[in-house]
Amino acid sequence: MVKVVSNLIEERRILELSEYFQKLNSVDIARDMIYLRDEEAVLAFRILPKDMAVEVFSYLDKEMKQNIIQLITDNEIKDITDKLFLDDTVDFIEELPSHIVKKVLKNTTKEKRELINQFLKYDENSAGSIMTIEFLDLKESMTVKEAINYIRYECSKKEDVDTCFIIDKNRKLKGTLPLKQLILKNEDDVLENIMDKNIISTKTIEDREMVASDFKKYDITCMPVVDFENRLVGIITVDDIIDIIDQENTEDIQRMAAMHPNEKQYLKTPVTELAKHRVIWLLVLMISATITGSIIKQFDDVLQSVVILAAFIPMLMDTGGNAGSQSSTLIIRGLALGDIKIKDYLKVMWKEFRVSLIVAIILSTVNFFRIYLLEKTDLMITLTVCGSLFFTVIIAKVVGSLLPIIAKKLKFDPAIMASPLITTIVDAFALMIYFSFAKLFLGI
Amino acid sequence: MVKVVSNLIEERRILELSEYFQKLNSVDIARDMIYLRDEEAVLAFRILPKDMAVEVFSYLDKEMKQNIIQLITDNEIKDITDKLFLDDTVDFIEELPSHIVKKVLKNTTKEKRELINQFLKYDENSAGSIMTIEFLDLKESMTVKEAINYIRYECSKKEDVDTCFIIDKNRKLKGTLPLKQLILKNEDDVLENIMDKNIISTKTIEDREMVASDFKKYDITCMPVVDFENRLVGIITVDDIIDIIDQENTEDIQRMAAMHPNEKQYLKTPVTELAKHRVIWLLVLMISATITGSIIKQFDDVLQSVVILAAFIPMLMDTGGNAGSQSSTLIIRGLALGDIKIKDYLKVMWKEFRVSLIVAIILSTVNFFRIYLLEKTDLMITLTVCGSLFFTVIIAKVVGSLLPIIAKKLKFDPAIMASPLITTIVDAFALMIYFSFAKLFLGI
Repeated sequence: MVKVVSNLIEERRILELSEYFQKLNSVDIARDMIYLRDEEAVLAFRILPKDMAVEVFSYLDKEMKQNIIQLITDNEIKDITDKLFLDDTVDFIEELPSHIVKKVLKNTTKEKRELINQFLKYDENSAGSIMTIEFLDLKESMTVKEAINYIRYECSKKEDVDTCFIIDKNRKLKGTLPLKQLILKNEDDVLENIMDKNIISTKTIEDREMVASDFKKYDITCMPVVDFENRLVGIITVDDIIDIIDQENTEDIQRMAAMHPNEKQYLKTPVTELAKHRVIWLLVLMISATITGSIIKQFDDVLQSVVILAAFIPMLMDTGGNAGSQSSTLIIRGLALGDIKIKDYLKVMWKEFRVSLIVAIILSTVNFFRIYLLEKTDLMITLTVCGSLFFTVIIAKVVGSLLPIIAKKLKFDPAIMASPLITTIVDAFALMIYFSFAKLFLGI
Repeated sequence: MVKVVSNLIEERRILELSEYFQKLNSVDIARDMIYLRDEEAVLAFRILPKDMAVEVFSYLDKEMKQNIIQLITDNEIKDITDKLFLDDTVDFIEELPSHIVKKVLKNTTKEKRELINQFLKYDENSAGSIMTIEFLDLKESMTVKEAINYIRYECSKKEDVDTCFIIDKNRKLKGTLPLKQLILKNEDDVLENIMDKNIISTKTIEDREMVASDFKKYDITCMPVVDFENRLVGIITVDDIIDIIDQENTEDIQRMAAMHPNEKQYLKTPVTELAKHRVIWLLVLMISATITGSIIKQFDDVLQSVVILAAFIPMLMDTGGNAGSQSSTLIIRGLALGDIKIKDYLKVMWKEFRVSLIVAIILSTVNFFRIYLLEKTDLMITLTVCGSLFFTVIIAKVVGSLLPIIAKKLKFDPAIMASPLITTIVDAFALMIYFSFAKLFLGI
C-alpha cells in the first residue's frame, strides 16, 4: 500500500487517495503511514476525514506523531486534541519533548488542559493513569426513555457506552446497567430500580496489576474508577488492560532473565540503555560466583590429584541450574497468576521433593550408563558424579521452588528468584557435594 | 419393517409400535427409519425409550438427523445432546449446516459446548475452538426499529450484544454495528446503509494466537468468526482472548525454562506429569554437556599444571550463560509480541554487538580489580580470566540474540532458544576460549 499512496500523493490524485483510504481501517492506515516521508504523511493525514484522522493519529508511533504535530497548523492541532480521547492525549503528551507539549497544550481548551495536568500526576502504575473520562454517566432518577434520549443527543462520542454508569446528585457511583439492558426495559422504568447495584469498581490509586486481575476474575470489559469519596471519576477499558497484561508479562520475563525491566520496544531502545539494564545484574551475579570459585580453591588438593573431576563440573552445574530454574519458573508463574499462594509452601515443597526424586533417579541412571559403560570412566569417579548429580537435582528443585515464595513473603518480586540467581546458588551446593563425595569415595 | 411401522403410525397404534421397537436393536431401527417420511420418523423417534432414541439417533444418516433436529423441540434436543457421546455429538455437528448447529449448541450445557467446540474439526489452537455462538445477528434488510424490537424480544440472553453482526439471507457476514450506534440512528434507517462494512473477522481455522494479536492491534472487544464461505458461525469475546494471552505467555515462559508446556495449574498437576514434562529437556541438556566435559578433558594438561584455573570456570560459565540468556530473552519476547521480525536480524546483531562491547568492558574491568588487586592472583592468570570473560560475553550476546531468530526462521518456537540451551552452547565457547588463552598467556 505504501507504494500506492506514495504514487497517488506524488501525482496529487487526491480524490483517488481519499477513496482508497475509505476502504481501509484506521489501524492499518496508521501502520502504513509510518513508511511515508514526513511531508507525504502530513498530506495523507490532511486528506483523511476528520474523525478518521484523529483515530489514525492515535495509532501512529511516537516519532510520526511528533513530526505531524510540528508540521500542521495550530487549528489542526486543536481539532486533534478536541477529538482525541483524554487517555490517548495524556499518553501522547507523556512521550513528547517539552517544546512540542507546549505547542499542543496551547491548542487545547482550558478544561481539557486542567484534566491533562491532573492525569499526569497519577502514578504510572495506578488505575488513575490508565483510566479515561469519556464514560456514560446517567442520573439514578432518570427514566429509561430519558436515558435513551440523553444518550442519543448528548453522548455520541463517549469511548465506552456499552455500559451505563449511574450516579446520584453528588456524582457518587450507585449502579451500572449494560446498554443492552437499558434497551430491553420498559420506557418508564426509573434507572434506580433497574440498575445493578452490585458494582465492581476500583480506586484511582489502586495498582493497575490488581485491576487487571479483577478484569480476568470477573470477565468484564470495563470498570468504573472512583475517588476516595466514591465519586465516579473515570473508567478503565479492557483494551488498555490487555496492554498491561502484556507489559507485566514482559517485565516478569525480563526480571527472570536478570534484567532491569524496560517497557520500550527492543529496536527503539538505545544501546547504552540496554547495556545499563543488563550490567548491574551481571555484576552482582559475577561477584556472587566468587563463592563457587573459593569452594574450588578450597578443594584444589582434590582436583590436583584427580584432574579428570574437573571435566564433570560443567555438566553438574548446568543440570543443577536447569533443574532449579524449572522449579522456580513454575512457582514464579503460579504466584503471578494467583494459582499458588504463600500459604501453599509446604504443598509446593513436598510436590517438588517427589518430582525431584523421580527426575534425579532418571538423570543419575542415564549418567551412570553414559560415564561408566560408554566412556569407561573409573567406577568410583562415576559414583562420585552420579551421587552428586542425584543430590544436586533434589536440592536444586526444593530450593528453586522455595525461594520465589520467600521473596513474595518478603514483598520482593518473586521473578528475581529465577534461573540466574538459582543457578549461582545451586552451583555452590553442587560443588560442595561433589568434592565431599570425591573425598569420601576416592579417599583423598 | 418399514411397512409395519408406517401402518402402525398411520393408525396411531402407539403401544403396539413401542412393543415392536423393543424387539429390535437400535442399528436396525435407524436403518429402517431412513425410509419413513419425516413426520413419521419424528413420531417413531418420540415413541422410543429415551436412551434408545439417542442410540438410534447416532446411527441415523446426516439428512435424517437434520430433519429430526428441525422438527423436535429444544427440550428433546437437550435430551439428545445430554446423552449422546461427545464424539458422536461432534461428528454429527460437523455435518450440519450452520443454522442447525446453532439450534443444537443452544441446547447444550456450557461445559459440553466448550468440549464440543474443542473437539469439533477445529484444532484446539484455532479460532473455532474458542468461539461462542451466542451472538446477535441481524438481517441487512432490517430497519433500526425492527432491529431494536428484534433485540428486545428475541435476544435477551445473547452473550455479547454490544455489537450487532449483520448478515445477508445466506448468512454471509456483511457488516457490524455497535449497539450504541443502533440507538443513535434514525428509526427508519436500513441496517445495510448504516452498518460498518469494514469488518475485522477471522476464519474458524485461524491460529488463536493470531486472533489475540488482532484483538490487540485493533483494540476490539469481540470478533466475528466466519467459515470458508464467509458465513457467520460464531464470535470470539475479549475475555477468552485474555485467557489465551495468559496461556500463551505461560507456555513461552515454561519453554524458556526448558519444560514441555503444560496448561494445568501447578497444584493440580500430578507429580509424575510434572516430572515427565521436565526430565526430557534435562536429559537432552545433560547429554549436550558432554561436549564441555570433553573440552576440559582435552585440555587436562593445562589444568594439571595450573589447577587454580579451575576456580574461575564457574564464574566464566555463569556470566556467559547469563549474558547470553539476557539477549535471547529480549529477542524471544520481541518476536512473540511482534516488535522484532526475522528480517531485523542484522539490526539485532549489530545492536547486541555494541551492547556486549559495553557490558564486556565493564565486567572485565571489575573482574580485573577483584582478581588481581584484591585476590592478588598472578597477572597472567588474571589476564587469561579477564580476556576470556570479554570474548565470552560478546559471543554469548551475539549468539544468544541470533538463535531465537534462526529458530523462528526454521518454524520452531523461538522460546526453546532460551537460557538453558544458550547456557550449554556458551559454556563450550567459554571453555575453548579460556583454555586457548591459558596456553597463550601461560605458555603451557
